[in-house]
Amino acid sequence: MRVLITGVDGYLGWALSLHLAGRGHQVAGIDNYSRRDWVQEMASQSATPIARMSDRLLAYYKRFGKNLIFHKGDLTDFNFVLNVYKSFRPEAIVYLGEMPSAPYSMLDVHHAVYTQTNNIVGTLMTLYAMADAVPECHLVKLGTMGEYGTPNVDIPEGFFEIEYRGRKDRMMFPRKAGSWYHQSKVHDTNNVEMACRLWGLRSTDIMQGVVYGTRVDEMAGDAHLLTRFDFDQCFGTAINRFCAQAVVGLPLTPFGRGTQRRGFLPLRDSVQCLTLAVENPPEAGEYRVFNQFEEVYSIMELAEKVRTVAGRLGMDVEIQPLENPRIEAEDHYYNPDHRHLLDLGYQPTQDMESELEIVLKDLLEYRDRIEARQEAQFPDIRWDRERRRSQTLPAAGERKAAG
Amino acid sequence: MRVLITGVDGYLGWALSLHLAGRGHQVAGIDNYSRRDWVQEMASQSATPIARMSDRLLAYYKRFGKNLIFHKGDLTDFNFVLNVYKSFRPEAIVYLGEMPSAPYSMLDVHHAVYTQTNNIVGTLMTLYAMADAVPECHLVKLGTMGEYGTPNVDIPEGFFEIEYRGRKDRMMFPRKAGSWYHQSKVHDTNNVEMACRLWGLRSTDIMQGVVYGTRVDEMAGDAHLLTRFDFDQCFGTAINRFCAQAVVGLPLTPFGRGTQRRGFLPLRDSVQCLTLAVENPPEAGEYRVFNQFEEVYSIMELAEKVRTVAGRLGMDVEIQPLENPRIEAEDHYYNPDHRHLLDLGYQPTQDMESELEIVLKDLLEYRDRIEARQEAQFPDIRWDRERRRSQTLPAAGERKAAG
Repeated sequence: MRVLITGVDGYLGWALSLHLAGRGHQVAGIDNYSRRDWVQEMASQSATPIARMSDRLLAYYKRFGKNLIFHKGDLTDFNFVLNVYKSFRPEAIVYLGEMPSAPYSMLDVHHAVYTQTNNIVGTLMTLYAMADAVPECHLVKLGTMGEYGTPNVDIPEGFFEIEYRGRKDRMMFPRKAGSWYHQSKVHDTNNVEMACRLWGLRSTDIMQGVVYGTRVDEMAGDAHLLTRFDFDQCFGTAINRFCAQAVVGLPLTPFGRGTQRRGFLPLRDSVQCLTLAVENPPEAGEYRVFNQFEEVYSIMELAEKVRTVAGRLGMDVEIQPLENPRIEAEDHYYNPDHRHLLDLGYQPTQDMESELEIVLKDLLEYRDRIEARQEAQFPDIRWDRERRRSQTLPAAGERKAAG
Repeated sequence: MRVLITGVDGYLGWALSLHLAGRGHQVAGIDNYSRRDWVQEMASQSATPIARMSDRLLAYYKRFGKNLIFHKGDLTDFNFVLNVYKSFRPEAIVYLGEMPSAPYSMLDVHHAVYTQTNNIVGTLMTLYAMADAVPECHLVKLGTMGEYGTPNVDIPEGFFEIEYRGRKDRMMFPRKAGSWYHQSKVHDTNNVEMACRLWGLRSTDIMQGVVYGTRVDEMAGDAHLLTRFDFDQCFGTAINRFCAQAVVGLPLTPFGRGTQRRGFLPLRDSVQCLTLAVENPPEAGEYRVFNQFEEVYSIMELAEKVRTVAGRLGMDVEIQPLENPRIEAEDHYYNPDHRHLLDLGYQPTQDMESELEIVLKDLLEYRDRIEARQEAQFPDIRWDRERRRSQTLPAAGERKAAG
């Protein structure tokens, strides 16, 4: 199948391109290297050293015996996008080319505006370019479980049947996002659903949980095929940050009480799920939603898991909660559905500890790169618009004693 | 009270500024004359001749004995917005400064992108500027009943209590917009709700029905105080277009079967309702939604009403349905709540026919101006992305006979 990946230079994009090539698909990618710029703006770098794109492409050719077709360009440049669609004629587009960080979007008004315009405009242009050039193409759009927030009821996959004052309808489940970034994904969701409804486009909207890990099998031990791994306050996801902290001997820093519950999945599962979506397209005009995660944990449970696995590898790791820079519910009900991908054949890895062991071993090789930028991990972007570094909180035990 | 009106040069903005000044408020306005440009882009003009802003301001001073403080500028220029808020220190902001047309947003990818970025960025900047400069200020934000679409259940005012799989929550009622413009309002709604939740701002989000009419009392027969009145395919609302068609002897053109039902209210009621919202602010951190309309009619019922009133004034008017350029449900359930404004003391005019008579008489004076631009009323912007003029449909009776 001809699959176009936007944001192919990013964490998921690169890994997915390897996996799809390994399965025999013809892959083309678009990127403008924004992620490299954003991380640099955060005074950080990927823990794994990332080859420049020309070297990546060479390594890709050596590994798979075929080229990754690569187009450098901006997804908010309509003529560029339309021309790529017309020349490559994708059967599926996996749209990963967005600014993916909540704290980055909360930095100030300019970052808020940049996040929403970059993400919304890119998606709008994709919808128009699809309708013009490849109306049968399947858009696999990356959203986030964060679109739903943490309601006090179960979270279905995108839609629910309601009865209200004695009448019934099937409606979008209400979203309640908690950052300008998460809102940008809600806006995309609404725009994509409408384009399917009005223009007969087809789309799978992926509400993804928090992804962690360094590997997909197709990397095959070739350092040029590694994907990036961020640990700074903006682009490092929770578990990835904990693993980076562990290998340089810093305490793991859950925010607040760490009782916030979220869905998680390893990188290899994310890539497996996106591939299932690509290989099982919806009908013309169909807009469907997959909640994409494996297991639900609290942030503190994850920190404990990283500590346990690190301990087995001889690292002595502390957990040191930080004042929560976000405004979010720390104690809440959380029970999201996730049947659709299992129905398509998703086989969850279900072995977080082995995955964490791989991550920690991989990162030990790049310890120096994390140490060199370790300041970047400390959160100082706060949801209340102040810019102030989060203070250390007393550990749970001490707090109880003090209370 | 110090009230800032964004989009003060527009249809509602100008009328509201007169009404608020008449009630003793101190009013400041912002505009960059975009509405004049958009209508010109549609090869049209306001039926009522609109004075240039300097003349409007002079007439305003003569009428009320005080100045309307006016700032020409763009709401997507953050420093401009922040400086106005800091100097005027508004206690309420009535945010009318958005691109308000569904067809205009559906013209092509560039108009879609312009609509969403202009509307979203302006609102985001307002939220930041409020939080920085006037955190106690009340944002009265103009949304539209079109955000809800036409669900098969009652439409509450913004929120509803649901029971889902045995658990309960109070949630935002799901939106289902039908154009990029309507989606931009949904995006604004989501952004504004979040800013209230995170930053303790206060806002009233107005889901307004279709407004019609030429007058508020404060215009007092002074032609310099008239507000604009558009009749082109983009900026003319349904009833206003019908009235303009009637006075130049063109058939009234409902789209499709005309069985689409919507909420409507006269201009003077819109202004009355916005004033009630301004004068009764919510608590800090409160985000509340008002469904703002008076009565629900089908588009065909309205056309009939305009024909009846025009007939009384000696105009012989036909109704000639056009192929619907929109993709929308024509037969649907529609039962939206609208209690909140009545609870605050809203007194609906409830006399559509007298209001229509005033409109028709006013427009007869400007018949030449409508005739000069009457081509602009015919819809050729279609929801399916084609640009093609809508054909005449057989009248209901003929269709039945043919079927």
